[in-house]
Amino acid sequence: MEQEKQKPSRLEDLNQYEIVVQRLLERGVNLEEIAEITYDLQKKYIPELTLEYCLIHVGKVVKKREVQHAVITGLELDILAEKGLLSEPLSSMLLNDYGLYGIDEVMALSIVNVYGSIGFTNFGYVDKLKPGIIGKLDEEGKLPGKCNTFLDDIVGAIAAAAASSIAHRFSK
Amino acid sequence: MEQEKQKPSRLEDLNQYEIVVQRLLERGVNLEEIAEITYDLQKKYIPELTLEYCLIHVGKVVKKREVQHAVITGLELDILAEKGLLSEPLSSMLLNDYGLYGIDEVMALSIVNVYGSIGFTNFGYVDKLKPGIIGKLDEEGKLPGKCNTFLDDIVGAIAAAAASSIAHRFSK
Amino acid sequence: MEQEKQKPSRLEDLNQYEIVVQRLLERGVNLEEIAEITYDLQKKYIPELTLEYCLIHVGKVVKKREVQHAVITGLELDILAEKGLLSEPLSSMLLNDYGLYGIDEVMALSIVNVYGSIGFTNFGYVDKLKPGIIGKLDEEGKLPGKCNTFLDDIVGAIAAAAASSIAHRFSK
Amino acid sequence: MEQEKQKPSRLEDLNQYEIVVQRLLERGVNLEEIAEITYDLQKKYIPELTLEYCLIHVGKVVKKREVQHAVITGLELDILAEKGLLSEPLSSMLLNDYGLYGIDEVMALSIVNVYGSIGFTNFGYVDKLKPGIIGKLDEEGKLPGKCNTFLDDIVGAIAAAAASSIAHRFSK
Repeated sequence: MEQEKQKPSRLEDLNQYEIVVQRLLERGVNLEEIAEITYDLQKKYIPELTLEYCLIHVGKVVKKREVQHAVITGLELDILAEKGLLSEPLSSMLLNDYGLYGIDEVMALSIVNVYGSIGFTNFGYVDKLKPGIIGKLDEEGKLPGKCNTFLDDIVGAIAAAAASSIAHRFSK
Repeated sequence: MEQEKQKPSRLEDLNQYEIVVQRLLERGVNLEEIAEITYDLQKKYIPELTLEYCLIHVGKVVKKREVQHAVITGLELDILAEKGLLSEPLSSMLLNDYGLYGIDEVMALSIVNVYGSIGFTNFGYVDKLKPGIIGKLDEEGKLPGKCNTFLDDIVGAIAAAAASSIAHRFSK
Repeated sequence: MEQEKQKPSRLEDLNQYEIVVQRLLERGVNLEEIAEITYDLQKKYIPELTLEYCLIHVGKVVKKREVQHAVITGLELDILAEKGLLSEPLSSMLLNDYGLYGIDEVMALSIVNVYGSIGFTNFGYVDKLKPGIIGKLDEEGKLPGKCNTFLDDIVGAIAAAAASSIAHRFSK
Repeated sequence: MEQEKQKPSRLEDLNQYEIVVQRLLERGVNLEEIAEITYDLQKKYIPELTLEYCLIHVGKVVKKREVQHAVITGLELDILAEKGLLSEPLSSMLLNDYGLYGIDEVMALSIVNVYGSIGFTNFGYVDKLKPGIIGKLDEEGKLPGKCNTFLDDIVGAIAAAAASSIAHRFSK
């Protein structure tokens, strides 16, 4: 598979990349687990696809400044909910992953948008079916005192954006 | 199930409602078929849900002016593609439902947005799995000279928006 | 001007309405000040428009659940930034209203979207020109220890959404 | 000002770039006129900014596949409206640039989104104030038989996206 240079572009922030990867790890998610979802989304369209290639594109997504801001903000809200530092009614909405609260989806969409509108479908699909790490996060988020309300949407959005990035790459 | 009055609001256009319903019918879609998708999306959350109730909410969605404009514009593009009245490269992109063309998703999202961000997930899910009439439209769209590029996304978006409308109604 | 009944709809949450109005007040914003921006946006199109009528529509916007969630989440982040409860780099980005941080705009857009896409223009316009209370909030936000990063966008988005609501009402 | 290499990325389509530039020209818009709007938006933040540099970034925006699809689709609708090939009520809505029709803004937003949410503000601002070529297009669109309903929003969106691209480039 063709080698792609990873030259930083103006939309990328490499300092913040390390922080975001670390923050995701602390919340129980590594980029490989996100890449697995991307792989499952795209392998039927691209037979020669490898997990390594998906991981490269997950990395590209996480280097985008817009994505980093969404991740950092969403994870902060999850963490503050767990620490009991949010006021009501936000605290209860996040701790219970209240179904009519849509700000997590709004933030996820800002991640997906970075690679264009073709990613909406993949985001919705994984957000509903909760494959792999997303399902694990969803279950974990139901434990008392635990909050993954933003995290599971963010992981799905990164996986969907990486799938879009790969789809653009493989287009004729 | 509680009776809801159907008073027209300022965001609704009842004259155009008839036109939109007729236009969908001419393209092979009736509102009942859209309501079936909504029903399948929501029945697991609301045991007492009926198809009739879903149909009421599909009707509400189609009465919204923003939705009507998206439907009218999208269907026009499908029809013009079939008639050979579009210039290249747009004509080929629409007739082949080109995977990297995302304007159909963009327009679908403007429909979903009318009932808030919680509908993104349902839209992506049905757009991927293509249940019921969506799958039929997708297959039909592959026939030579036939174009359902916008229509299948629009149907999925109306179904998802109606599901959101119902979810808001049943919230505590 | 025609009297409109204010029957709660399924997308409205009246309990949370009081909380949101109170929260805005605590941050220095009353609905009248938002209505003034709406009035300035729409008076050139609707000569008979009154400030009272704008206030009714600002109230309608703030009764929408999607809007309430955006307000509650955004204000919480501003407040937590002021209290020093956010981790870095988010804390510095919010306290300095970092120009490339766009999550405040993302959240504002979810407010504007509730009345359809015609509100984008008005939102961008007031976000740039900062009329009335928005300019005051922007200035205040530059004081040490003060953070209005989300609040000024939220106020602009509510004003723009109310302008859209009025435009829909006065359409033929 | 630093020289930037213009290596095509996976999101760019250089063949279609020529088509899009040509199509804009046929509708009376050259990229320099778009760059002038970008220049006016950003010069107050970046004193050393040149029109040439803005033009490079306008070119970058127009090389993005998502942007090309929005331009091609929007211009097609304007042209078909002028040719009398659209059915009612879409034909009248486009020829009269009907104020409650928001699909032009929806499509514009898909252009702005490519460089992240910070561009919303600039888009709304130029869409309202109609500087330079946008004002000219708006006036021209009012002539009988002429339709620039999509074009003026598209031009504003490209200018705003280029401003975002430059802002990302100049960030610390």
